[in-house]
Amino acid sequence: MNVPQKLAALRAAMKTQGLDAWIVPSADPHLSEYLPEHWQARVYFSGFTGSVGTLVVTADEAGLWADSRYWEQAASQLSGSGIELQKMGEVAPYSDWLAQVLPPNATVGVAADTLSLSAKRGLESVFAAKNIRLDTAHDLSDSIWHERPDLPNGKIYVHDAAFVSETAAEKLARVRAAMAEQNAAWHLISSLDDIAWLTNLRGDDVSYNPVFLSYLLIGGQTATLFVDESKLNTEAKTALQAAAIDVAPYGDIIKAVGKISDGLLINADKTAVSTLAQLPSTVQLIENINPSTLFKSIKSDADLAHVREAMRQDGAALCGFFAEFERNLANGTAMNELDIDTMLHDHRSRRPNFVSLSFNTIAGYNANGALPHYSATPEAFSQISGNGLLLIDSGAQYLGGTTDITRVVPVGDVSDEQKRDYTLVLKAHIALAETVFPENIGSSLLDAICRKPLWQAQCEYGHGTGHGVGYFMNVHEGPQVISYHATLSPHHAMKIGMITSNEPGLYRSGKWGIRIENLVANRAVENPQETDFGKFLYFETLTLCPIDTRPIDKALMSAGEIAWLNAYHAQVREALLPLVDGEAKDWLILRTEAI
Amino acid sequence: MNVPQKLAALRAAMKTQGLDAWIVPSADPHLSEYLPEHWQARVYFSGFTGSVGTLVVTADEAGLWADSRYWEQAASQLSGSGIELQKMGEVAPYSDWLAQVLPPNATVGVAADTLSLSAKRGLESVFAAKNIRLDTAHDLSDSIWHERPDLPNGKIYVHDAAFVSETAAEKLARVRAAMAEQNAAWHLISSLDDIAWLTNLRGDDVSYNPVFLSYLLIGGQTATLFVDESKLNTEAKTALQAAAIDVAPYGDIIKAVGKISDGLLINADKTAVSTLAQLPSTVQLIENINPSTLFKSIKSDADLAHVREAMRQDGAALCGFFAEFERNLANGTAMNELDIDTMLHDHRSRRPNFVSLSFNTIAGYNANGALPHYSATPEAFSQISGNGLLLIDSGAQYLGGTTDITRVVPVGDVSDEQKRDYTLVLKAHIALAETVFPENIGSSLLDAICRKPLWQAQCEYGHGTGHGVGYFMNVHEGPQVISYHATLSPHHAMKIGMITSNEPGLYRSGKWGIRIENLVANRAVENPQETDFGKFLYFETLTLCPIDTRPIDKALMSAGEIAWLNAYHAQVREALLPLVDGEAKDWLILRTEAI
Repeated sequence: MNVPQKLAALRAAMKTQGLDAWIVPSADPHLSEYLPEHWQARVYFSGFTGSVGTLVVTADEAGLWADSRYWEQAASQLSGSGIELQKMGEVAPYSDWLAQVLPPNATVGVAADTLSLSAKRGLESVFAAKNIRLDTAHDLSDSIWHERPDLPNGKIYVHDAAFVSETAAEKLARVRAAMAEQNAAWHLISSLDDIAWLTNLRGDDVSYNPVFLSYLLIGGQTATLFVDESKLNTEAKTALQAAAIDVAPYGDIIKAVGKISDGLLINADKTAVSTLAQLPSTVQLIENINPSTLFKSIKSDADLAHVREAMRQDGAALCGFFAEFERNLANGTAMNELDIDTMLHDHRSRRPNFVSLSFNTIAGYNANGALPHYSATPEAFSQISGNGLLLIDSGAQYLGGTTDITRVVPVGDVSDEQKRDYTLVLKAHIALAETVFPENIGSSLLDAICRKPLWQAQCEYGHGTGHGVGYFMNVHEGPQVISYHATLSPHHAMKIGMITSNEPGLYRSGKWGIRIENLVANRAVENPQETDFGKFLYFETLTLCPIDTRPIDKALMSAGEIAWLNAYHAQVREALLPLVDGEAKDWLILRTEAI
Repeated sequence: MNVPQKLAALRAAMKTQGLDAWIVPSADPHLSEYLPEHWQARVYFSGFTGSVGTLVVTADEAGLWADSRYWEQAASQLSGSGIELQKMGEVAPYSDWLAQVLPPNATVGVAADTLSLSAKRGLESVFAAKNIRLDTAHDLSDSIWHERPDLPNGKIYVHDAAFVSETAAEKLARVRAAMAEQNAAWHLISSLDDIAWLTNLRGDDVSYNPVFLSYLLIGGQTATLFVDESKLNTEAKTALQAAAIDVAPYGDIIKAVGKISDGLLINADKTAVSTLAQLPSTVQLIENINPSTLFKSIKSDADLAHVREAMRQDGAALCGFFAEFERNLANGTAMNELDIDTMLHDHRSRRPNFVSLSFNTIAGYNANGALPHYSATPEAFSQISGNGLLLIDSGAQYLGGTTDITRVVPVGDVSDEQKRDYTLVLKAHIALAETVFPENIGSSLLDAICRKPLWQAQCEYGHGTGHGVGYFMNVHEGPQVISYHATLSPHHAMKIGMITSNEPGLYRSGKWGIRIENLVANRAVENPQETDFGKFLYFETLTLCPIDTRPIDKALMSAGEIAWLNAYHAQVREALLPLVDGEAKDWLILRTEAI
């Protein structure tokens, strides 16, 4: 079927079920950032392949809501489909649109396994004024999407004990203590990174994130992992037994929830309506962040030691990559944006304890670098030639940690305007990197410190400054976030041991993009000069890789900023030198020279 | 009656009315910062004279909840009263305490005119778990507080037209447009500054704030000011007629609210339960900030021009004051903290368009300066002698604006530690003063920029960095606030024309306190270098008075900070020189010398 045929089938099914509209979000029952193909119904029905977007179909109209990074791609992929591109930010949200175009008392359908409890409430509150009903009892995909892929079947294994500093049993005990504090007899976890952290297991069901499809239901005495048992290897089964975690079939979670009789702790943002379908109405819902989300954001000293080693290996791999890159440039070997991904993967995969990349490499040359989430594809990519700036945002999963780094390197000549922009972003990066801040401050309150150097020049970037990073886990993890656009929450309190990215940027549409990103860890100030005003933290920069000094306009930098950069480069050189040789070593020495 | 007798009388009245507890907040039906004596029941019943505190009385116990600045004073004033000091921040809020000590199904009373609708809801939600009922039908003061002062009787006059840039009719039209946008047929305003701004009238019912007791009820076609008509002078009556605002007796607001039949816009934080006592239950409450609160926070260009002139006059007065102060120090004339207030009032009152002080002068020498809201009293004050730092926080009301300034000056020798602290605070002040920021950013998101220089030295201060300031109006006005402790709200968006204080500090308990405060206005960046990233604002520093350079440790300051200070002093000298002579002129020239 082509897209118009699929829409016709959807509309026929809508009619049968008495639905006036059908919503296809980008979501799965675990509210994951990356969806297994099984839940990519929006891609199937619309033909739009971007990572996020929502398809809405009524009897007469169909719209796809996409954010600005996907407007061009969506416009092209939706052409002739009968689906109209709805530019998020420029048009009303799809919920408001539905409330406007539908008649009073209409019914809107959405698959219950693609809707969080929070999202359901949001829709219902918008629909209430026109008495529009939300129906989550049907999944229209069932009768249409015959070639729907099976659930992923990645193997589940134990996170190597050498890299684990707390047993699953100990983690469970901490979660149960948090449950008791909140008078929760039960706690249901649907978010895959929470489950992988708690069980000390890892999997391969989702791209880039070493997690596995499952639910974890924790009671005061019992804990049950709902998972396809055939995916567990022997070690994993033994580990679960040791932690007194039972195993039950993945799909049985719904019945199990139906048997709960006392207070249930859930995170409504991370729990699908489908999972709660049989929850007795008498059970009190206790809604809060999952305790494990807070716990796993705080890395132990042992974890951090492993992360530092992973950063050394990653940095050494990057020395090899950049040396090869510069050699190719020097000798005229053609390279395109896709080659960058291949080369990076090649260098990283040779490093010990490498598992996979941690996200889709972004290599954007000149104008492509101005698209913050650009991804080169075999259908559309640029050659790296002539003059300009190449932005590379990449990372990897190691058994001892997750990396995420952005560097911008010059190709050919760099203009004065490019140098100015590059230097402003570097100043912003340093401003955050060197700041000291009170323990427990809301993370987003630090954003202005980073942006000030850009603001002084009336420059700004649209994305956040920092996201939390997992430990051999998701490259984006909460709760902390450094973004003044984020809603402040008490869960954003900065704690010792959290790892966050520091990634200011500056994007000139159609011209070039700059972003400089290191990962940083919250550390307590050692030997504080003062102790009267509470505890203060600083950022330890974890990422170890030279920041190219060629595009710097030194006249724009303060003595303090220059000192920071030179100290960082001295540290990088010292840390990586034992791990590289040949052209990688030469490159490291060259690119860590003081300015 | 002494306090124990008053408590006994309260307990007898509680018994008669079937109340298990009685709450006496610091509040009036207008939720003003400064209360007329008529509403100072908490002072009457407890004997504690601090500006804020809550008395709670049960059959067996009595507690007074006070914040840290009043702990010493409250402990002394409550001694022997039978009332226990409850240190806010160290103990549970009084609502939680009541929920704990009272039996299920108890009844708690509070006078309806001392409780906002928001506060009522807050209490009810805490009391719900134990089914404790809140009774607002009685005011136990009535039968006990026989000597209760009458309502204040300050004259109401028209704000001189030379200083007014928008007529009351025009302001009303803007409010009505905002009402229409929110589908509000009616709008009730209880907050006195909003009413004074809307009507272009001023009064004298509340210390330091030129406002008058009243309510304003606005409909689509009508507007009624509920006020004691005898307080209005002829001009004021004519002005109200011209704006088509009717006048009705102050107490009639309750009946008038009883006649409303359509949607009513109120700010639940600023509306007392008493005022809504007769509101028909069928009326839909539309709860939001008062539109006038947003409008009045944005000063017109004409307003700002008057403020600049008021700042010149205030600065000139301060030159005279500081010249006299230093002469007294030099020739050994004894001065104490109370003398500072007298001298400041004397110099300011000689300036054109002076009306009154804008708040109770804070003059704190050494350890007293470490108490951020210290106020010397005839019973307790320090002599200014020996070595140390004197903190002076003061301000005035002029027809053309409201001032608020803090300076710290050395007396005798200044230690290296004091210089370091002073310089850190100055660096923080400059960091905020010189920042550029995106229009509409949440004001509190800028706080970290100010605090960074202090945080780097593991120093911190407990109060906010900036409060909004009125135009010949309250020295504290919302909505914007620069404080990372404040709950972020969409109403905190920074707009062109807002005036805010910039007042970082550093307090060494028992030793000294430092705060450097100027008022700043939000201005659009002129001739921006960039226009691709939205509109950017900067702070125009309005306050004109030297910042003492003697306690500066120049080695701690960057070249940019020194340049800012020297430019500021050049501006201050140029602006004030025409307004001063004699020793004031000599002082101005001396204290504005570049460093």
